[in-house]
Amino acid sequence: MPSAETDPTSTAAIPTPALVVERSVLDANLSAMDAVRPGRELRPHVKAFKSTALARRLADDGHPAFCAATVRELEGLVRAGVGDDLLLANETLDVERLARLVALADDAVAVTIAVDSDATLDAAIAAGVRSVLVDVEVGLPRCGCDPADAPRLAERARGAGIDVRGVMGYEGHLMMVRDRGRRTDAVGAAMAALVGAAEQVGGDVISGGGTGTFDVNEWCTEIQAGSYTLMDTQYLTLDLPFALALEVAATVVSVSAKGWIVVDAGLKSLGMDHGNPGWDGGEVMFCSDEHTTLSPRDASRHRVGDRVHLRPAHVDPTVARHEAMWLVDGDDVVDRWPIDLRHW
Amino acid sequence: MPSAETDPTSTAAIPTPALVVERSVLDANLSAMDAVRPGRELRPHVKAFKSTALARRLADDGHPAFCAATVRELEGLVRAGVGDDLLLANETLDVERLARLVALADDAVAVTIAVDSDATLDAAIAAGVRSVLVDVEVGLPRCGCDPADAPRLAERARGAGIDVRGVMGYEGHLMMVRDRGRRTDAVGAAMAALVGAAEQVGGDVISGGGTGTFDVNEWCTEIQAGSYTLMDTQYLTLDLPFALALEVAATVVSVSAKGWIVVDAGLKSLGMDHGNPGWDGGEVMFCSDEHTTLSPRDASRHRVGDRVHLRPAHVDPTVARHEAMWLVDGDDVVDRWPIDLRHW
Repeated sequence: MPSAETDPTSTAAIPTPALVVERSVLDANLSAMDAVRPGRELRPHVKAFKSTALARRLADDGHPAFCAATVRELEGLVRAGVGDDLLLANETLDVERLARLVALADDAVAVTIAVDSDATLDAAIAAGVRSVLVDVEVGLPRCGCDPADAPRLAERARGAGIDVRGVMGYEGHLMMVRDRGRRTDAVGAAMAALVGAAEQVGGDVISGGGTGTFDVNEWCTEIQAGSYTLMDTQYLTLDLPFALALEVAATVVSVSAKGWIVVDAGLKSLGMDHGNPGWDGGEVMFCSDEHTTLSPRDASRHRVGDRVHLRPAHVDPTVARHEAMWLVDGDDVVDRWPIDLRHW
Repeated sequence: MPSAETDPTSTAAIPTPALVVERSVLDANLSAMDAVRPGRELRPHVKAFKSTALARRLADDGHPAFCAATVRELEGLVRAGVGDDLLLANETLDVERLARLVALADDAVAVTIAVDSDATLDAAIAAGVRSVLVDVEVGLPRCGCDPADAPRLAERARGAGIDVRGVMGYEGHLMMVRDRGRRTDAVGAAMAALVGAAEQVGGDVISGGGTGTFDVNEWCTEIQAGSYTLMDTQYLTLDLPFALALEVAATVVSVSAKGWIVVDAGLKSLGMDHGNPGWDGGEVMFCSDEHTTLSPRDASRHRVGDRVHLRPAHVDPTVARHEAMWLVDGDDVVDRWPIDLRHW
């Protein structure tokens, strides 16, 4: 099998384990989102795919505002010249990293940072950040200030000469509510707190939402979704108009007469927090560091050297384990997209 | 906080999230293993730590034979000039990668490959590999041939001019047997198959074992252990003479009046297949991509900006998520070791 360096033209020649993205499915996912959240109503979250190539595609499709979970993701977007309105939808105390980002962005790109405390606001001020959103807790036990504290933080920021663009609040605890009606009601209740804070904070941005709530969250001015692009088996359990574009290609390296087969993708090429990957040829027995042992429905069909595709349970931590994803059209390799927004 | 580029001298200045390794604990772990498995009786498994700097330390300590799970790990060792006897303790069909490794190693370093089928032997032959071990299944449903097939594969390999150095068999399913007596008995039963195959295959190597069985596996001529160097919370549950040297340093980025705190290490800096990390300040509520929400025993003690250390549940997939680990001596940074053996 050729190595990456020799630019494989057929999917079967991609060195394994490897992320493969079916172009037609990706295209359909992007279209389905764009139909509901056009232009800046969508702020794609790059943490899900960590690739400037895919981000560029989204910007070209009319979504030039991005959000990210790490400063390094934003640095990568700035260096690649992708996006014109970049949001760190996360808290950080790292003044040096923030200052480096602000200097890198210069006047060419707007950089906005989430703050939810005096300490994170102090870090933004010290780093020379020019605009912030006040991050409000809306029920997920994670970041975000008490809604009642949001106006005070906004006032402090404005006093320091910072543009307060509005608020953000992530209803992550509601992404996987199965029933659409219950999901809609729960999101509405969560967003009531955010909308209330927004009225007191001022600004015109109410940022939130995600792949699970992109079409039921009617309260946010922009939706922070990323997983919809590639998808995973967990999000597939919801009634979303997105299909699985991403799989992990693996090679069968061992076949046992006892009925199992072993492929060369394991814990180090998969995000395991949502459990084992899926496989349409049978059951996944278990994953090891560099192997997955599979129990095929029909063991006689499998030979050493065959290719199989595993379906990741959680897209974000899976992608973050790889150096690249391969864009494919059936058996043909279309492109190799570096996962160039990794680490911190 | 300084970035990596400014070479922090104090642990508190390491940018987070970050792997930190307590030098005294690492030293003690290496000594404890060396006392039982000196010299070439230990074949350290680099998959656990993926760092040529740590491998070099082991070679300097008298353990210059290594094993690895990927060709790329072995390429990295060869390029770094670390080790004189390198074993791919895994199967591969990737002739191009193998051939590149053989060419790189040239005559300077012995490269041995595990084979468990005609197809993997064919790949070794096609790649110009000069020596192999026959990988025998000893009860773990993964790679390894039927013991009865091992002599045939050995004969085929010798017929192709390949040096058959012996056998390997990994009793991975027995690593976590809690009771030492039961563990010893089960390993003995598993190794009986391997020793039987070794007698028929010939050669002088019987390779197997791991951190969980390093001192009860009396049948192998060399032990393939790696996790003992850094350890994790799962291995800590056994009666092993190794302590936790590795932790993930994180910064508190948010403190809620409702009693939880949020740190900047999550699914993308931890291996999650063995569950949540440990934390000595209270309970881990859940991990998100770039956050872990903690429920402290004493919430009043924690401030935004504080450092906390998480204890990884599984060392190998945790290390593989990072670019470097920081060797520390209490509050002092001793060295930065690149995780330079990642990917495939």
